[in-house]
Amino acid sequence: MKLVESVPNFSEGRRKEVVEKIVAEAKKYDRVWVLDWSMDADHNRSVVTLVGEPENLINALFDMTKKAVELIDLRNHTGQHPRMGAADVIPLVPLYNVTMDECVQYSKILGKRIGEELGVPVYLYEKSATHPERENLANIRRGEFEGFFEKIKDPMWKPDFGPDRVHPSAGVTAVGAREFLIAFNVNLGTGDVRIAEKIAKAIRFSSGGLRYVKAIGIELKEKGIVQVSINITNHKKTPLYRVFEMIKMEAERYGVPVLSSEIVGLFPLDSLIQTVSYYLRTNLNSKKVIESNLLDILVKEAGK
Amino acid sequence: MKLVESVPNFSEGRRKEVVEKIVAEAKKYDRVWVLDWSMDADHNRSVVTLVGEPENLINALFDMTKKAVELIDLRNHTGQHPRMGAADVIPLVPLYNVTMDECVQYSKILGKRIGEELGVPVYLYEKSATHPERENLANIRRGEFEGFFEKIKDPMWKPDFGPDRVHPSAGVTAVGAREFLIAFNVNLGTGDVRIAEKIAKAIRFSSGGLRYVKAIGIELKEKGIVQVSINITNHKKTPLYRVFEMIKMEAERYGVPVLSSEIVGLFPLDSLIQTVSYYLRTNLNSKKVIESNLLDILVKEAGK
Repeated sequence: MKLVESVPNFSEGRRKEVVEKIVAEAKKYDRVWVLDWSMDADHNRSVVTLVGEPENLINALFDMTKKAVELIDLRNHTGQHPRMGAADVIPLVPLYNVTMDECVQYSKILGKRIGEELGVPVYLYEKSATHPERENLANIRRGEFEGFFEKIKDPMWKPDFGPDRVHPSAGVTAVGAREFLIAFNVNLGTGDVRIAEKIAKAIRFSSGGLRYVKAIGIELKEKGIVQVSINITNHKKTPLYRVFEMIKMEAERYGVPVLSSEIVGLFPLDSLIQTVSYYLRTNLNSKKVIESNLLDILVKEAGK
Repeated sequence: MKLVESVPNFSEGRRKEVVEKIVAEAKKYDRVWVLDWSMDADHNRSVVTLVGEPENLINALFDMTKKAVELIDLRNHTGQHPRMGAADVIPLVPLYNVTMDECVQYSKILGKRIGEELGVPVYLYEKSATHPERENLANIRRGEFEGFFEKIKDPMWKPDFGPDRVHPSAGVTAVGAREFLIAFNVNLGTGDVRIAEKIAKAIRFSSGGLRYVKAIGIELKEKGIVQVSINITNHKKTPLYRVFEMIKMEAERYGVPVLSSEIVGLFPLDSLIQTVSYYLRTNLNSKKVIESNLLDILVKEAGK
């Protein structure tokens, strides 16, 4: 059995009944499992974590998008998080017996259906991008829903699928294959946010740091401490432990203690195995983990 | 679905066809999975790793024992590893939705059948032990097959199940519920085995070290280095990282580098999560691991 993960983001984080209806669309399908979903009222955004067999998963994501287009109207949408569509972004992540190239193909099948059947312009991003400037989601989303009515007229921003005009209430949607993303926060024992900012700058790709790291420094006011907030966009090539040790190293320069870290949301077993292999000076793999063996067997049986 | 793990040890490590016949008995059962099996010719012993639903697993273990009793004759058995029975020891480990108390009950069901139907005396050990001196398997096995013909006459060593006389060719068998055991080796950059022995002594329970650690120092002659070879008998209470860090600490005293470590055989996801939580100063749990969520779902579906 092939398994793909998807973490679609919808631009609704306040009306629970709407998000539940979107999630319900996924639950209609066999061999598609909703692992988790959450809403954020400040961001006015919800995130669903799904795993499934490719064909059923694509159908489920299409139905969820269709429901989101019906129920979400971006003309009335406010929230802290930038957004451009009712179904804002739909990433596909290879999880099991599946290659990145296959996920790129699946993203094109899904994008084509959303564009043609729902009349929502679709941009392929990350590994599915058809132009280098579309790899980074932030480039596509720049200008947001409101700005897209102009942006879409620029030939450089002609959509990959669907009409050449923004859907009046549902905007535009990004679909793409990508590596698993790990959201990782490290808390520092100081109230001085400039130190978190300096460390973020030291470790992130954009200012000379690690290739697959995005990072910002933020203040946790209620706790009186600061945090380096990180996205690792390819944890196989920039592993968790290397990011953590580099933060420890930089924090030492300021005499600031590293208090704790947290991984936000779900993370893959691989990232645990890498971390343990480093610290215990060994070379583990998932074949040695009991639960992983059991999963292999049950995935095979479920695929019969 | 409830899942129990078992790692039965059979006293045959040279005749592959015999071990294959024993393993084949387990494969007859639905919802029993053979994750791994291996033979050691020097030890003249084989170890099978099974996972299954309790009822089927117990039946599989009974059939494997029956086959071992048929095909293995301890009167002709030589090997480095101490042994007392054709099926030497059968541990039951709670893996999924199952308590240690339930595993104790299962071990009694299995022990009773082996004793009564196969005529092999059975001793309950570890958490299933009926006397404190039977908790430690080494106490039961002391004297081995050859010594048991006298030992069994001592009222203190009356079997828990089966006849009061040793099976003439198949000896006696130990059955018991226990925690998962992690076999863990740490390699040191020296050829002086006394340093490995001193470190083993420092960390093991029997000489004042960590509660759930057994350890010896050995020489790896072909590599020109030495090794601390460890069994962690309860990794929840004596975690892997604590053992490793204590070895690093002691090795420093001798100016000897810790080169690498290795985990022998399979290990549970829990032990990875503990280790990562320590080194990254965080607090993870299996609910955050994608594969673990997927396993939960598939175990539920397989149980339907």
